[in-house]
Amino acid sequence: MKNLQQSENKKLQHLLSIKGLDKKIIEQIFDDADMFLEKEVTELHNHASLNGKTVCNLFFENSTRTQTTFEIAAKRLSANVINLDIATSSQSKGESILDLVNNLIAMSVDIFVIRHSEPGIPELVARNIKSNAHIINAGDGDREHPTQGLLDAFTIRKFKKSFSNLKVAIVGDIQHSRVAKSEISILSTLGTKEIRVIGPKTLMPDNIEDMNVNVFHTMEEGLNDVDVVMMLRIQKERMSNNTIPSESEYFKNFGLNQKRLKNAKDDALVLHPGPINRGVEIESEVADGKQSVILEQVKHGIAIRMAVMTMMIDKK
Amino acid sequence: MKNLQQSENKKLQHLLSIKGLDKKIIEQIFDDADMFLEKEVTELHNHASLNGKTVCNLFFENSTRTQTTFEIAAKRLSANVINLDIATSSQSKGESILDLVNNLIAMSVDIFVIRHSEPGIPELVARNIKSNAHIINAGDGDREHPTQGLLDAFTIRKFKKSFSNLKVAIVGDIQHSRVAKSEISILSTLGTKEIRVIGPKTLMPDNIEDMNVNVFHTMEEGLNDVDVVMMLRIQKERMSNNTIPSESEYFKNFGLNQKRLKNAKDDALVLHPGPINRGVEIESEVADGKQSVILEQVKHGIAIRMAVMTMMIDKK
Amino acid sequence: MKNLQQSENKKLQHLLSIKGLDKKIIEQIFDDADMFLEKEVTELHNHASLNGKTVCNLFFENSTRTQTTFEIAAKRLSANVINLDIATSSQSKGESILDLVNNLIAMSVDIFVIRHSEPGIPELVARNIKSNAHIINAGDGDREHPTQGLLDAFTIRKFKKSFSNLKVAIVGDIQHSRVAKSEISILSTLGTKEIRVIGPKTLMPDNIEDMNVNVFHTMEEGLNDVDVVMMLRIQKERMSNNTIPSESEYFKNFGLNQKRLKNAKDDALVLHPGPINRGVEIESEVADGKQSVILEQVKHGIAIRMAVMTMMIDKK
Repeated sequence: MKNLQQSENKKLQHLLSIKGLDKKIIEQIFDDADMFLEKEVTELHNHASLNGKTVCNLFFENSTRTQTTFEIAAKRLSANVINLDIATSSQSKGESILDLVNNLIAMSVDIFVIRHSEPGIPELVARNIKSNAHIINAGDGDREHPTQGLLDAFTIRKFKKSFSNLKVAIVGDIQHSRVAKSEISILSTLGTKEIRVIGPKTLMPDNIEDMNVNVFHTMEEGLNDVDVVMMLRIQKERMSNNTIPSESEYFKNFGLNQKRLKNAKDDALVLHPGPINRGVEIESEVADGKQSVILEQVKHGIAIRMAVMTMMIDKK
Repeated sequence: MKNLQQSENKKLQHLLSIKGLDKKIIEQIFDDADMFLEKEVTELHNHASLNGKTVCNLFFENSTRTQTTFEIAAKRLSANVINLDIATSSQSKGESILDLVNNLIAMSVDIFVIRHSEPGIPELVARNIKSNAHIINAGDGDREHPTQGLLDAFTIRKFKKSFSNLKVAIVGDIQHSRVAKSEISILSTLGTKEIRVIGPKTLMPDNIEDMNVNVFHTMEEGLNDVDVVMMLRIQKERMSNNTIPSESEYFKNFGLNQKRLKNAKDDALVLHPGPINRGVEIESEVADGKQSVILEQVKHGIAIRMAVMTMMIDKK
Repeated sequence: MKNLQQSENKKLQHLLSIKGLDKKIIEQIFDDADMFLEKEVTELHNHASLNGKTVCNLFFENSTRTQTTFEIAAKRLSANVINLDIATSSQSKGESILDLVNNLIAMSVDIFVIRHSEPGIPELVARNIKSNAHIINAGDGDREHPTQGLLDAFTIRKFKKSFSNLKVAIVGDIQHSRVAKSEISILSTLGTKEIRVIGPKTLMPDNIEDMNVNVFHTMEEGLNDVDVVMMLRIQKERMSNNTIPSESEYFKNFGLNQKRLKNAKDDALVLHPGPINRGVEIESEVADGKQSVILEQVKHGIAIRMAVMTMMIDKK
């Protein structure tokens, strides 16, 4: 995997997972994102680094929001952007995805942003294309969502500087969340002092022991003295099939409210990948409160994606 | 409302309704639109006034046509344009619209073009966002559609110069038409001599007396000696629920044909916001006839929207 | 038709069909496409020839793939691109298409790319618009798909130089294929030595005798000694209504496999307009084999469309 993501001279070729990504590459992405944020302040919105390049959004699973972040980031780099409307189309089988991607490469697409409900599809594509095109994983099943992991860690770094003294808690459906996997992986790579996961036993992955995290089943214990609280979005679909009880029951046990947040440090940050379900996994007072950095995450998401795409195109 | 649309130094911050908009601002928009039309003649199609800015179309009610006019106008100003496909999605409740807009502001959207079936949603958003982003109302329920009002009045000005001598008739479903509300409001602001409305009693709003218009229930009387005839589009949905009788019945009573048009002045203009229902509210001979300025309205619609967006961005 | 496609001074006004298109125009398109391909090699991706112009994709029949090729080509020429989502909408009747197009012309659209299930719609539009806008036929029913014909012939020229010594076989559902019609027409215009069609009798058009082709009903005979094999895509819809037998039955009789390809010359090219149905009309060994130029066709398709649009805009 490492060799698939980085070319022989250590440059970023694809972004498929945080797992296996060099700490050096991560820090370079952060520095580049910082630069884009600074230039924003001086009103320099558009950049030329992808001028003449074509970015193609291939979302086999609908996500207007995430697709929009890549579209905005690419347009601000002066790229030509193509959104293919292929969710739930007949294109979802492995073989035909490769035909589709190879056709688009022949049409001169340079970067593919791929989301798919099946884990490993972006990696499959990266392994099998015969060109210098770049693949960015925008979420593959319950496996990874690396740009979300990057922007979350970037946001923490903005406010907390170093990771080596931090206790970070991730709260929710760890088992099915690709965001949680990418967060655990990047926090671990960056040397976070302690990574905790909080949630009901039914929502912990089987291999949670191998993840180098401490597991908690109550908010009160898990949030105790932490520096950062990373909430996960509850997929309402999971409630209907009984993996998760009712919304009110879930909120009663694992929802983040002001009172529970008091268990964490006074200056603890609250993160959420969005869109938030108010009153389900988080109450409005916390989501809109002064410890929340949720909208900063969104802002940083654009800068991180600009940094990743620029790095891919510049370094080849 | 006035303060919401214009900043303290009288600049255009949002465009939510014609009601409450300064005559001075309207005339400035017209002059800017004139300039864009003139430059078009000299083949100068694209302009740089929104270069590096992002315009987001948020249409909670489908309208390919209106959305396209804003998309073309924004692209001709060199903006990055994002079309969010959210019609009939779960995003339609008040609270979540604010979350959505605040997220998009964090992604650096500068101008939102909002259409919603519920009156007041664009104003609600303008009141509650915490940034310098701009809101343009592209139609809110039966309340207002200000850019349509602007382009209609602009078209009249092109051909008739002054409003102070004009008799203008608006024909159709006044009650449910946001276009009619914006037209009445702008004609009134610009000092039109007489504004008439023509339609069946069942399609007049309850507060029609307060609108400073003369009400007619037959075409023959209402069109007599007018300088401008502004047709409204009939919403076919209204027929199925019996507010309006059959198409043929409606056309018999209130459809505009050549014979009826003779009641108006010989050089009377015919306007229609489009798309026209041929043979329902207007016959083809009139729609395509020499008094029709319907396609000029479409052309002017691009220039007016370019002028509004440029004014918002330039003046802040 | 000729006069409709070319202005009085012989310039390209519309591209409606290969039939009636001057050989000189075709060769000029090929030369321009060559230039775009060469510049690609030197990393000059974007061009300014459509800067400030607006291209509108009007696909009344869904085709993400073809629409994407026009979108990419137009964006690489710096055009503003509008994709109208009108497939299966109420806009499909003749009259309202003209209203729609005239409205879009008023919004300053310069080039329309039109696909429609009914033959002749692009021509109908070209005949009836009152402006200098340009129409490109992107497929009208079973009639023509001229840019596909152009890119196919261009691909053959790339590898075989002259047409006067070539034997070319077109294989599949000749009757319903607009691609076949455009291919036969352009090969004929370019002076191809022999054009063959291969397929079951039930899939031959009634007027096949008038097309100046030799008809074969077995692959073995038809492919014998040919220089080029042009496969057609099988429309699976046709199988359900029994025009075509089962996929396996079709593949058994008319599928292209390695063994059958041996009937052709050793250096025979294999073309396919895509997307391919592996194992239905072509086996993977051939589609991905060294005689296949299928991905080159895709690449050339962008260059050809760039050349056609540039010629239309430059020459007026």
